[in-house]
Amino acid sequence: MMTQPAIEATTPLYLTGDQSAIDSFIDRFEIFLFDCDGVLWSGAHLFPGIVETLELLRSKGKKIIFVTNNSTKSRVEYQQKLSSLGIPSHVEEIFASAYSSAIYIARILKLPSPKNKVFVLGEAGIETELRGEGIEFIGGTDPAYRRDITAEDYQKIADGSLLDENVGIVLAGLDLHINYLKLSLAYQYIARGALFLATNIDSTFPSNKTLFPGAGSISIPLVNMTGLTPLALGKPSQAMMDAIEGKFSLDRQKTCMVGDRLETDIKFGIEGDLGGTLMVLTGVNKKGDWEQNDSAIVPAFYVDKLSDLRGPKFS
Amino acid sequence: MMTQPAIEATTPLYLTGDQSAIDSFIDRFEIFLFDCDGVLWSGAHLFPGIVETLELLRSKGKKIIFVTNNSTKSRVEYQQKLSSLGIPSHVEEIFASAYSSAIYIARILKLPSPKNKVFVLGEAGIETELRGEGIEFIGGTDPAYRRDITAEDYQKIADGSLLDENVGIVLAGLDLHINYLKLSLAYQYIARGALFLATNIDSTFPSNKTLFPGAGSISIPLVNMTGLTPLALGKPSQAMMDAIEGKFSLDRQKTCMVGDRLETDIKFGIEGDLGGTLMVLTGVNKKGDWEQNDSAIVPAFYVDKLSDLRGPKFS
Repeated sequence: MMTQPAIEATTPLYLTGDQSAIDSFIDRFEIFLFDCDGVLWSGAHLFPGIVETLELLRSKGKKIIFVTNNSTKSRVEYQQKLSSLGIPSHVEEIFASAYSSAIYIARILKLPSPKNKVFVLGEAGIETELRGEGIEFIGGTDPAYRRDITAEDYQKIADGSLLDENVGIVLAGLDLHINYLKLSLAYQYIARGALFLATNIDSTFPSNKTLFPGAGSISIPLVNMTGLTPLALGKPSQAMMDAIEGKFSLDRQKTCMVGDRLETDIKFGIEGDLGGTLMVLTGVNKKGDWEQNDSAIVPAFYVDKLSDLRGPKFS
Repeated sequence: MMTQPAIEATTPLYLTGDQSAIDSFIDRFEIFLFDCDGVLWSGAHLFPGIVETLELLRSKGKKIIFVTNNSTKSRVEYQQKLSSLGIPSHVEEIFASAYSSAIYIARILKLPSPKNKVFVLGEAGIETELRGEGIEFIGGTDPAYRRDITAEDYQKIADGSLLDENVGIVLAGLDLHINYLKLSLAYQYIARGALFLATNIDSTFPSNKTLFPGAGSISIPLVNMTGLTPLALGKPSQAMMDAIEGKFSLDRQKTCMVGDRLETDIKFGIEGDLGGTLMVLTGVNKKGDWEQNDSAIVPAFYVDKLSDLRGPKFS
């Protein structure tokens, strides 16, 4: 293996169109951690050449892990999404922030029963993963919480009669059904001592070539109200990296994180002391974001689009 | 009039139980600006002695103005709330953040038609005041926006077909029907260049002796997504003080702001260079908040509760 620039280098290597650089980049790593939204696809739109690029890596014996902060889907649902887009994958190759959160709550936090119930701001994916780890929860997709707040609710929230005294954790993910009632309840639980966790804190969620509110914009009202910051269990939290390392026994020096966000993906790889980080410019951040802003977070490598790894003849 | 400590004094004067101090405090001012929630009442609970205290001030010839960041009610509705609690008042004595916002948009901002429509995150009170100033708006209480986001919406928001091209302003107040669709639309308007305004940015809304999400916790996801801060038109924004001064022709040196929040009410009074500020301890902040945290915002006077102004025989 040739000597490579250290990942701390402030000038990332541009791979697009440079077959020799691409070859030595690929040779250097055994495992590629892939962010998905903004890297492989945007919304329901698969980027061209993605399937072939992943096939190329697999053909060279590389291990692929899909690491996503998307908390609305369980791993099984996420694998179905990959399949529906034509991307071959196994459930075991998927590591999502809902799963990471369930692992953390069940295996690391281990609050004593019965005060270990979770109040969920989020969708079915979180519920599936919590169930998989045997964690009790309320909220989530329960229709009882998908409604307007009533005059009676204010009183019942204030006097505690609408609260479950066994809630010891508030877990906030991307909740497409966020409302005032849920925010009021989540605040009350945190104010009364529940731990404040988040599947991830991405401010936005890329879809259809634009941005929608991300999980971090669901939990931010609670941050604003309490002054507390949630423990985030998705990228760039190293709790997620530790869980990935434990599950896949990866050699960090031979692992490369691939993503479209400096503050999430690239930071995740750098702080995880991985052998490399690859930035793609098909998502949130652009080249100017690390060049113009004197960013402390700079990728080791970058390409215009992931399929540029197929080489100049496909670019 | 005796010489009083400057309002910059870091040790506020405690009036509770001190008839002489109370008398000179009241004598000093002609106009009292009252915050309401946390000062006069909490939720639907009127604090004891409030009506008598306001009567006492009126009997001494003081002018009373109710200055509230509550954006869910129009001035007429707010006056009805005061009446229902037994507090005599006139609509003209009420200055609310929804009204302040409408005044700002119509009389100061004056965007050229037709690109001057307002997308509202908020309740009927904002709509009433916007209508009163002849401002066109969408969103607000329209049932078309009080629903779950659909798969089709993502596409229509991204391609602009669900957007009104004449929206030039996003105005965020306390929206008890906040949802993912509204946040997605508001984000999109701001990202496309609409001005970002907020009726107020209180993080919490006190009710039933506890806290619920305030208007600032409705707009904070948009702050989180855009990196922009809204121009806030409620306390402590001096846009509101200027509007009050214009309407009531007040002498600032003979005006006292009464409130329960350092960051909102007391800051509003200090930055407005009023003759004084009176803190009551029946709401959000406590004495420790200015003493322990080396606060830059310190009231000139404080009482345990507003009715302490009636004197020691009623305390």
